[in-house]
Amino acid sequence: MYMMDIKDTGLRGVPVADTRISAVDGEKGKLIYRGYDIDELARYSTFEETVYLLLYETLPTPKELEIFKENLASERQLPAGIIRHMKKRKKSAHAMDVLQSVIPMLADFDDTARAGTKAAQINTSIRLVAKMSTVVAYWDRIRKNLDIVKPNEEMGAAANFLYMLKGEIPDKETAKDFDTCLVLHAEHSFNASTFAARVTASTHAHMYACTGAALAALSGELHGGANTQVMKMLLEIDRIERVEKWIKSKLDARDKIMGMGHTVYKTIDPRAKILSDISEKLAGRTGITKWLELSRKIESVTKAEFKKRKGKEIYPNVDLYSPSIYYVMGIDPDLFTPLFAVSRIPGWCAHIIEEKFAEAQPKAVIYRPEAEYVGRYCGLEGCKYVPVKERE
Amino acid sequence: MYMMDIKDTGLRGVPVADTRISAVDGEKGKLIYRGYDIDELARYSTFEETVYLLLYETLPTPKELEIFKENLASERQLPAGIIRHMKKRKKSAHAMDVLQSVIPMLADFDDTARAGTKAAQINTSIRLVAKMSTVVAYWDRIRKNLDIVKPNEEMGAAANFLYMLKGEIPDKETAKDFDTCLVLHAEHSFNASTFAARVTASTHAHMYACTGAALAALSGELHGGANTQVMKMLLEIDRIERVEKWIKSKLDARDKIMGMGHTVYKTIDPRAKILSDISEKLAGRTGITKWLELSRKIESVTKAEFKKRKGKEIYPNVDLYSPSIYYVMGIDPDLFTPLFAVSRIPGWCAHIIEEKFAEAQPKAVIYRPEAEYVGRYCGLEGCKYVPVKERE
Repeated sequence: MYMMDIKDTGLRGVPVADTRISAVDGEKGKLIYRGYDIDELARYSTFEETVYLLLYETLPTPKELEIFKENLASERQLPAGIIRHMKKRKKSAHAMDVLQSVIPMLADFDDTARAGTKAAQINTSIRLVAKMSTVVAYWDRIRKNLDIVKPNEEMGAAANFLYMLKGEIPDKETAKDFDTCLVLHAEHSFNASTFAARVTASTHAHMYACTGAALAALSGELHGGANTQVMKMLLEIDRIERVEKWIKSKLDARDKIMGMGHTVYKTIDPRAKILSDISEKLAGRTGITKWLELSRKIESVTKAEFKKRKGKEIYPNVDLYSPSIYYVMGIDPDLFTPLFAVSRIPGWCAHIIEEKFAEAQPKAVIYRPEAEYVGRYCGLEGCKYVPVKERE
Repeated sequence: MYMMDIKDTGLRGVPVADTRISAVDGEKGKLIYRGYDIDELARYSTFEETVYLLLYETLPTPKELEIFKENLASERQLPAGIIRHMKKRKKSAHAMDVLQSVIPMLADFDDTARAGTKAAQINTSIRLVAKMSTVVAYWDRIRKNLDIVKPNEEMGAAANFLYMLKGEIPDKETAKDFDTCLVLHAEHSFNASTFAARVTASTHAHMYACTGAALAALSGELHGGANTQVMKMLLEIDRIERVEKWIKSKLDARDKIMGMGHTVYKTIDPRAKILSDISEKLAGRTGITKWLELSRKIESVTKAEFKKRKGKEIYPNVDLYSPSIYYVMGIDPDLFTPLFAVSRIPGWCAHIIEEKFAEAQPKAVIYRPEAEYVGRYCGLEGCKYVPVKERE
């Protein structure tokens, strides 16, 4: 039983379904994927293993993991028709718009896109996980008039992405750090993009369509666009001594501070803590400390101001520290949201499959909420229609 | 206050927001757009006027309507880059996949796509309404290796669509009937595609992205795909004497009868009644009565069987009679779902604008429901992660 007025709340706190994929404990700052704590996965697992866990509900044996990694690596290439399309695209096109048009196009090349079996859907998921990276890396090079760098099947997902993007093999530590970023962003329950994917899956649309809907929702600046907004803020503030004034004036204007606060976490987002550590390691290795220091200062000033103004705590979310990592790795700020898609795609796929096969809730039906009509009303028969010629 | 267990219900009967756009009275079989009854609009209005009503919340004066129609007609052309892309596309591509990739591509050509003003969003809506028709008609000709037929600015939306599709100017009655079909499908409150668009709009994604999400949800066979499924059924049954056996065997297998029953209407869908009348007029004019007769027989047999088996009434929905209309008009069955998009786009745009500008509910926030975790659980610390090498 559920009791509250849920109108206008964006369904916050309202359980709309059962799930076996992940759990977020907003009070305690815990996130688990298929039973495993995000801290453990970030420390010991890899992106490929996490993808396996999300899709198959269990951690792989050494043999299973080996085969899975080969499968993933072998699916990285894009059809020639897609590459041709991307090369013809306007160079000014936004990467999220490119993703949103290229992903549904992949359905043209997948004979099993409309197949109803779970095995077919898992194969499509593997394709999507592998190809999302390639689309993002290729687009970045194409728009810069650089030759594309073909994927290397010998490399892991994280190293290969950086290699396709930069044309250089990344050092082991950077690849590992980037891999951890992918693990951290892989899944986060019923956020807006995942929910859009599930609403779409509930109509029995194919997986490319469902992913397209998720990408659309992710592109919004209140969702996946937030990390790009944080980098914009870092670049705008630029000097540590300017943080305080900048934050205060934003709060005076009742603006949000991007990267701070979360609708679910009432304490520190466990991912923010790990990302802050990665950012610190990276700053240590590269000597580029500026963006980390700015981010930390933004955290402390916002916390203090929030306490003073509202008597409330506020904590960093997943988007505060990833920009300082990606930027130091030489990734363009407007690719941060596409990167979010590169890491979130396994979570979306797991949710689409769970929704389609009603795995957690046997009676799943198409989403069809109600709305309360508060518009023009002239009784049950409707307002009188006056023919256009007689209107003033 | 709201009291019920809403998990697993697809949010049926759950009011998630306020709206000023349309109201559905499922008990009485009433549908109103911005206060006007669908029966009146179907009889006296036109698609263009209905689009105006949905976007501007009021019926236009003669002068306003004239300018609006000119605006709409002037936006029908597609950028050359889009036409080139469509010509290069695999001819076997599904029309809904083509729409899903072409619509986000239009953002490349719209400098105001990311503009925050309502005026800009309304202009983008006009573009989307105008160009959706062109994409569908062009794609049908391109995949058939026919030359595209450029839009004609002198014609209304309905006549121009049929003209672009067939290369012939339709007779007045056919154009009028098709126009009424567009009016009837223009808007239907928080169905799955509109809800996907609103979830996406709540992240502040641009209008092309929101429309892409709506198209994705519409493509599912339980939603916009249903009219194509109905035509498949009509073609499969083919002869009136086979209807009874076919329906009974479907019901024996606990399958749904597409075109019958609705999650909201508990009586006849007001649109089904009007569509049935149009189908009858068209059958009378053309002499092609077969598809209408089959549809009517499906209605009566399903009603009788439902009564007998479940003691319940079932009524035709919007998808039962539109196939017999479109098919007689010479439109391919796999275009029926894209046609749904051609007619529904003004409704989606109105909802995206209402969501973005929080017009009906001042405190609108990003959609972020909860889910109840029912998966693997090993306590708050998570399950023990065993390194892959040590796994069996």
